[in-house]
Amino acid sequence: MTWGIISTWQQSLAGTTKAAERLAAQGPSGDAVQIAIESAEADPAFNTAGYGGLPNAEGQVQLDASFMNGDTLSIGAIAAATDIAHPIAVARNLSHELLNNLLVGHGANEYARRHGFAMRTMLTPEMQNFWGKQVRKNATRHDVIESHDSIGVVSLDYRGRLHTGSSTSGIFMKAKGRVGDAPLPGAGFFCDNQTAGVVTTGLGEDLMKGLLPLRINQEIANGLTPQAACDKVVYPFVDELYHRSGHIGAVSVVALAKDGQWGAASNVDFSFVVATDQLEPTVFAAKRSTNNQTNIHKIEL
Amino acid sequence: MTWGIISTWQQSLAGTTKAAERLAAQGPSGDAVQIAIESAEADPAFNTAGYGGLPNAEGQVQLDASFMNGDTLSIGAIAAATDIAHPIAVARNLSHELLNNLLVGHGANEYARRHGFAMRTMLTPEMQNFWGKQVRKNATRHDVIESHDSIGVVSLDYRGRLHTGSSTSGIFMKAKGRVGDAPLPGAGFFCDNQTAGVVTTGLGEDLMKGLLPLRINQEIANGLTPQAACDKVVYPFVDELYHRSGHIGAVSVVALAKDGQWGAASNVDFSFVVATDQLEPTVFAAKRSTNNQTNIHKIEL
Repeated sequence: MTWGIISTWQQSLAGTTKAAERLAAQGPSGDAVQIAIESAEADPAFNTAGYGGLPNAEGQVQLDASFMNGDTLSIGAIAAATDIAHPIAVARNLSHELLNNLLVGHGANEYARRHGFAMRTMLTPEMQNFWGKQVRKNATRHDVIESHDSIGVVSLDYRGRLHTGSSTSGIFMKAKGRVGDAPLPGAGFFCDNQTAGVVTTGLGEDLMKGLLPLRINQEIANGLTPQAACDKVVYPFVDELYHRSGHIGAVSVVALAKDGQWGAASNVDFSFVVATDQLEPTVFAAKRSTNNQTNIHKIEL
Repeated sequence: MTWGIISTWQQSLAGTTKAAERLAAQGPSGDAVQIAIESAEADPAFNTAGYGGLPNAEGQVQLDASFMNGDTLSIGAIAAATDIAHPIAVARNLSHELLNNLLVGHGANEYARRHGFAMRTMLTPEMQNFWGKQVRKNATRHDVIESHDSIGVVSLDYRGRLHTGSSTSGIFMKAKGRVGDAPLPGAGFFCDNQTAGVVTTGLGEDLMKGLLPLRINQEIANGLTPQAACDKVVYPFVDELYHRSGHIGAVSVVALAKDGQWGAASNVDFSFVVATDQLEPTVFAAKRSTNNQTNIHKIEL
């Protein structure tokens, strides 16, 4: 029986390993997504999501998260939320609502509080310090856009159910209320039991123009492998956007198809974690190669 | 020389007529989009956007808007913003920023204030009354989802530039902080000078699963007319989502291609306005017909 999970960035290894145990024990893919992401959210060393996440220009940690069900296409998401210990849990809960599936700002916070989700001050003293130093040295655009490591997870369970999830504190020193791609359907994630799940990480402002998860899903529906689909969609897009706008940020994707095949593509040095019924939890590095292909190799941590 | 503009809902006739005059005088399509939408935002009779828009469950008018440039693919958008007289103007300004293109809640309000945009109390006494009555009679889900008439506009100028814009107060009695499809790239709008611009109106919670503007753009790129592309994408999606989730809200789209051809599709009684260098500003009704086609006829107001 096939199952699988794929997560962005090598720091997600511990959480992904825990989630893989759940999948191996015939647990549901929605749970696996939540387990992997909650682990990152709780870990202050994973400094681009949840507790210990990077603050915005005003020194506040504002969080985005999403959850999607590949059967019903149900979506739940929050953006620019504060003081929520596990944004992914709130996003998942919102995916069960008939209306009001995407909540932002105080509306998201109040929903979480009213529904009994754990609240927590998400700014750590370390991050407050780091923020203070950057303010004093006047952080440049470069500093800001080098921080874009949101966690994104796709999971497939033994019953063929796909789910995606994502969670991020967004780019460092972002404007108050800024939202990236993580909570945006089609741009940050897309998931369909009939094809695949795909999530992105990178510069949200560029990813929202690419709508890569939807496009990669379409290519897999047309018969490509996840790797061929990622290659075919990602590299022409980054070249085209650079051509049109004169700049391009980091763009990375991971995909997991309904048959357990997976793929990744990136225009930066990108790492990700895969576990399936055939593969122990393993960290890979992905880098753009020639001819719009991706060089992928195992990393020993 | 070809130019054109297409706007959702017959109430946009006055603003679209004004915008068409600008296009006929060789004005840029970005200006035309803003003119048409600002007219709706300023008009309290257009009660689903801007001044006099429908309040949320707490009696507050929270506004979403977006603007997209089909040349650079630049996007600007705000969501759950309050007290901004012309959300479309702020969205357009955000599309010129290098980062932080999508701002929500207080972050959006503060950006608007700091950049000198006109601020205004958007709740009218009439809407406050209407809201009070609904609260007393305990508005049902049906009342809520029957209000989904956001304004969306696509405009093409004589130099071949396409822009899209949208503006809405969202569904009546929505949860605080709820965001619909209007400010979501690919879901509420998409625009590419090489193909077409497409905008949606309807139930955001369903439209964000459909990503219809992106898909319709792809079909036009593949050689379909805008009308054939709308038909091919919209009706299978509404049937599929109904099949998967057991319910489907209102879904309407309008599309305008780079050659001035246009199309529309809807699963409700939908009206829209078109003006081109060949056609005086005209109101049309669109309704689903048999064989995944759309019946479109002129309306005399």
